[in-house]
Amino acid sequence: MSGAPSDDRDEFALIARLFAPLAQSYPGALGLGDDAALMDVPAGQQLVLTMDSMVAGVHFFADDPADLIARKLIRVNVSDLAAKGAHPFAIMLSAAFPHAVGMDWLRRFADGLGQDCRDYGLALIGGDTVSTPGPLTLTLTAFGRVGQGQAILRSGAKDGDVVFMTGTLGDAALGLLSRQGRFDRLPPSLRDHLDQRYLLPQPRHVLGPRLAGLAHAAMDVSDGLVQDLGHLCRQSGLGAVIRAQDLPLSDAARHLLADDPGLLSNLLSGGDDYEIVFTVPPEHADKIARLADDAGTSVAAIGRMCSQAGVVVQDGQGRPLDLALTGWRHFNDTRGK
Amino acid sequence: MSGAPSDDRDEFALIARLFAPLAQSYPGALGLGDDAALMDVPAGQQLVLTMDSMVAGVHFFADDPADLIARKLIRVNVSDLAAKGAHPFAIMLSAAFPHAVGMDWLRRFADGLGQDCRDYGLALIGGDTVSTPGPLTLTLTAFGRVGQGQAILRSGAKDGDVVFMTGTLGDAALGLLSRQGRFDRLPPSLRDHLDQRYLLPQPRHVLGPRLAGLAHAAMDVSDGLVQDLGHLCRQSGLGAVIRAQDLPLSDAARHLLADDPGLLSNLLSGGDDYEIVFTVPPEHADKIARLADDAGTSVAAIGRMCSQAGVVVQDGQGRPLDLALTGWRHFNDTRGK
Repeated sequence: MSGAPSDDRDEFALIARLFAPLAQSYPGALGLGDDAALMDVPAGQQLVLTMDSMVAGVHFFADDPADLIARKLIRVNVSDLAAKGAHPFAIMLSAAFPHAVGMDWLRRFADGLGQDCRDYGLALIGGDTVSTPGPLTLTLTAFGRVGQGQAILRSGAKDGDVVFMTGTLGDAALGLLSRQGRFDRLPPSLRDHLDQRYLLPQPRHVLGPRLAGLAHAAMDVSDGLVQDLGHLCRQSGLGAVIRAQDLPLSDAARHLLADDPGLLSNLLSGGDDYEIVFTVPPEHADKIARLADDAGTSVAAIGRMCSQAGVVVQDGQGRPLDLALTGWRHFNDTRGK
Repeated sequence: MSGAPSDDRDEFALIARLFAPLAQSYPGALGLGDDAALMDVPAGQQLVLTMDSMVAGVHFFADDPADLIARKLIRVNVSDLAAKGAHPFAIMLSAAFPHAVGMDWLRRFADGLGQDCRDYGLALIGGDTVSTPGPLTLTLTAFGRVGQGQAILRSGAKDGDVVFMTGTLGDAALGLLSRQGRFDRLPPSLRDHLDQRYLLPQPRHVLGPRLAGLAHAAMDVSDGLVQDLGHLCRQSGLGAVIRAQDLPLSDAARHLLADDPGLLSNLLSGGDDYEIVFTVPPEHADKIARLADDAGTSVAAIGRMCSQAGVVVQDGQGRPLDLALTGWRHFNDTRGK
């Protein structure tokens, strides 16, 4: 119950100094000098809220670079908001730091936060800092704005909608396997690509808001395409048929799949894609390519919504693939260990 | 990367079943079936936001009853909002559960959440559930509403304001010492009182909003009166003089203090009070007693704001007390161990 030793007080002061500049752009953050933040919401707008936690040894490696840990935390949450069609503008951060975290690490962590706050137009408006005898545990609450009634939900898909996804599938899952030493013979440039996709997601924050009013349903793929599309299907009371040959794959994924076709299951069920899967009525499907092009994001039409519940992935002959793995569970999981 | 074993899936399903009813009253929670929540803010109102984390072994004992852990988490955050003059209405919860957490524990935890959601008029509108190889780590983001410009900040105190605090001082700190076996000779009824004050804070959610427009500054006392009032003083560019003999003490605290006057330092610096300290211009000070009475909360005038920086606690003769302990630091701390 006594005060902490002086070096801890220094650490406290350092955190305050490092984080305060990230709040400057938002008056309601009160300079992080109060226990609470104030927020005004313009008339005609709704808030979109999301909250994600990341634990060292579960969602990232404890020795990942501190700036990349901070940036992944931000991007995971930005991805959720973008998939709702929202413009992210603020975050609150709660960090449980283990005792081993030092000043250099904190500086680098704050650098990463600052870089992505600038890049995504975010203000840090509040949060909490505590100590933990366990692993580094980070929780972000992220705030986005969307026009009243314009948010794209999971539940809005219609029978016959075209299913699209952004970017490429499963690179982060392969990146994790690569870091576990699975692909030692992969050319370094391809391995680097996979590593980066695991370490630093690229949320589709430009395209996401432009899908509002066009997409019937959307969500970000964080726990594997089959599982997440399954959530969207259930919330919409529908099913989906996905064509394996239309799945967008990176060069690295194609290279590995040529050697080991069984990896397709990993691509379809692996976490950390942070791409958007969304459904669009067929009559608007031809607008998507140009919209995505303008946003600098690739998209692929990968299948159709249907009335039959469940997600079916078909091979080139229209036969359903047997997918033993259906996705990533967060509870009692072992990812990143 | 493989799916979790079936009992974990059961646990996932249980969490979903247990938490979903807490979201029913809030349409924007989307039944907790989406990755995000939607929130409308009525014209003329501002949001007040706060976020607090609690770690087993740091902020509570890992073997504390699960329902009381949940309720303390809610109350700690409600206390922050009440001290800003805000009406709490929604929470988001992120929970990192250790593997040892079982179904009975989860049921009891959800019971506690549900009870306090009902008692404080809160909806659970979203969050995250992850696993951790470390201690149970809980983070709550809480949302309150306040009339535009009506929030009571730390920074508004004026020279000459009367300093008030609600409830009694330091009981939770004594409750912690009691649980560590320090007060074995204390009568059981007094010890129970202290234990309860440590386990289950009583946020002043009725009085808090009624102070809007009357109090110049306010904050909740969570890290010790001297430290927290020090924050308020710094944010207001002032200092405060507190009269030790006017500090509101419980029977249990008086009993222990009679034996060991040195415990006054613990009362003044101990955490977890979750009372409100607030400042009121002298011409309105006489309204406070009735207001507090109506709200069912006791208040005490404990001192004055002054131009000289710092917090001074005076004895009955007006001499400053030497307080070696100035409060509770969250970083690298040892509370609850």
